Amino acid sequence: MTGIDFTVYKGSPNGKIVKGSTHKDLKPDEVLLRITHAGLCGTDLHYKDQDMGLSHEGVGVVEKIGSEVTFFKVGDRAGWGYLHNACLHCDQCLSGNEIFCPKRAMYGEADLDQGAFATHAVWREAFLFHIPDAISSADAAPLMCAGATVFNALALHGVRPVDRVGVVGIGGLGHLGIQFAAKMGCDVVVFSSTNSKRDEAMTLGAKEFYATKGAKELDIGRPVNYLMVTTSASPDWNLYLPIIAPMGTIVPLTVTEGDFSIPHMGLVGKGLRVQGSICPSRGLHVEMLRFAALHAIKPVIQKFPLTLEGIQEAIDKLEKGQIRYRGVLVAPGA
Amino acid sequence: MTGIDFTVYKGSPNGKIVKGSTHKDLKPDEVLLRITHAGLCGTDLHYKDQDMGLSHEGVGVVEKIGSEVTFFKVGDRAGWGYLHNACLHCDQCLSGNEIFCPKRAMYGEADLDQGAFATHAVWREAFLFHIPDAISSADAAPLMCAGATVFNALALHGVRPVDRVGVVGIGGLGHLGIQFAAKMGCDVVVFSSTNSKRDEAMTLGAKEFYATKGAKELDIGRPVNYLMVTTSASPDWNLYLPIIAPMGTIVPLTVTEGDFSIPHMGLVGKGLRVQGSICPSRGLHVEMLRFAALHAIKPVIQKFPLTLEGIQEAIDKLEKGQIRYRGVLVAPGA
Repeated sequence: MTGIDFTVYKGSPNGKIVKGSTHKDLKPDEVLLRITHAGLCGTDLHYKDQDMGLSHEGVGVVEKIGSEVTFFKVGDRAGWGYLHNACLHCDQCLSGNEIFCPKRAMYGEADLDQGAFATHAVWREAFLFHIPDAISSADAAPLMCAGATVFNALALHGVRPVDRVGVVGIGGLGHLGIQFAAKMGCDVVVFSSTNSKRDEAMTLGAKEFYATKGAKELDIGRPVNYLMVTTSASPDWNLYLPIIAPMGTIVPLTVTEGDFSIPHMGLVGKGLRVQGSICPSRGLHVEMLRFAALHAIKPVIQKFPLTLEGIQEAIDKLEKGQIRYRGVLVAPGA
Repeated sequence: MTGIDFTVYKGSPNGKIVKGSTHKDLKPDEVLLRITHAGLCGTDLHYKDQDMGLSHEGVGVVEKIGSEVTFFKVGDRAGWGYLHNACLHCDQCLSGNEIFCPKRAMYGEADLDQGAFATHAVWREAFLFHIPDAISSADAAPLMCAGATVFNALALHGVRPVDRVGVVGIGGLGHLGIQFAAKMGCDVVVFSSTNSKRDEAMTLGAKEFYATKGAKELDIGRPVNYLMVTTSASPDWNLYLPIIAPMGTIVPLTVTEGDFSIPHMGLVGKGLRVQGSICPSRGLHVEMLRFAALHAIKPVIQKFPLTLEGIQEAIDKLEKGQIRYRGVLVAPGA
């Protein structure tokens, strides 16, 4: 087996992106991709001071396949997300929940030598996804994590088409959550701090929009059955609890340290469910792509060149909150 | 319609139980019960300084029926729990979740003039339950709230027979939760502060028992998929989070003020579910009674006379934590 060397863009101790390289030997069940598009996620910011390949929203073209690969051929488009590998034998894997496999390999935890900010990547075939023809590679990239995460929050955890769904926050996740929920048939209600994103939210599929900054109470009529929280900090539960229907579900997608705290009797007395949720396992990821293709669900993206300068610029903008709504790095010539 | 007067035992401002009376006119859809047995629940203690009829675990014999009553006849045994009435027309009622009806009448909120600590009670037929022949009236009383609550926590919220179920705390709720979960086929693991209730827990159906007082970590082998918390205060989540399987469910039955707080990334990262849960709506209440009858699930009870003195003694013992595991007041002559 001939080795493969390729360029990888990594974090570094001072938080600046640096250009590095890695070496891979293609195993029989692995695929070599030439990366064309890579999404930038808020979680990447947590790793920019680490010596690791950044980005976990990768899309590319198959350049070479291992001897046992059967589901991909050279020239196919393929994408991947947070999950790189799993044992496929434990309780979690056997029940289609391999994202929780104790031996999983996941972005930020394993395979730190490569990421989607790179010229190439080598991954196990079983953890790559075909990109439906109806979805461009640029649009596909943010679906690999942001789209997959909001779809998982809805589809895995039992949202019903007749539900009234609240989406708190409109960013990389929220703007896709609105679209997925709307296309599922839900009555989508959006909560954002100000009115600045009202028109876009309605265009994306929301039926109602509420600006929450300074609000002492929310008056939304019929309460929501589902509340997806995509803000970077937990909201004021005293504001939201009164507008959640009994037996409603709260899905906090917020990634934050500290405790998740909610008034105890509000939770228990109304029979509410707080559902922890991350990105999906493979089955739901495939369904997400199929659903997005069927309903033309697309991220709103800002493109940057997939170069050292382009990555740095995109990261700087994301840190300043200037990206609406997802940055996608595009390989030169792609 | 002739009016009915009967004795009711109520709370009073100084927390002492007092004897009072109430007057009812039997409506066409109502049933008059002569109470034979009444359970004492921890939540009754919250109301002992209120001018209201206490106890919501009532069992009696039908003494009179309204003109439109069709499901009960004089001489039938009947029981009731927290829920007295609901609109039967709202979204919640129409989906079988009438416990969350906005117009519900519930213990502590409505019908304060009567409770199960009384000689009689008048309730709407639709909110009374037939007691299966296999269940004695004394055993039936604690099933009306304690049994119903733990059954709801398991059955409504999706426990599977193959699940490993943790029960935290062995009291009125916990000792029934162990039995229901065991009879559902679950592998039941009990957590209690000391070993004093170990033998009883194993007899009730637990397969493993862990004393948690002073424990810095728990080593239980395979983690639990379901954790039912029946203690009066929330447990130390740093102790329990490591022993809950990914996508596991926590049902905190604790009734307490303040916040429910759990490490945010423990909740989200493992995809855990925190499920608020109270007593069931009627459909599950009926299933609970049927299941208890089929599997001979019985509360462990301590009997007291259903008199002013008997009630006061039972309350005093419950406050001192001396009841194992549920107090039942028995009407003189019953």
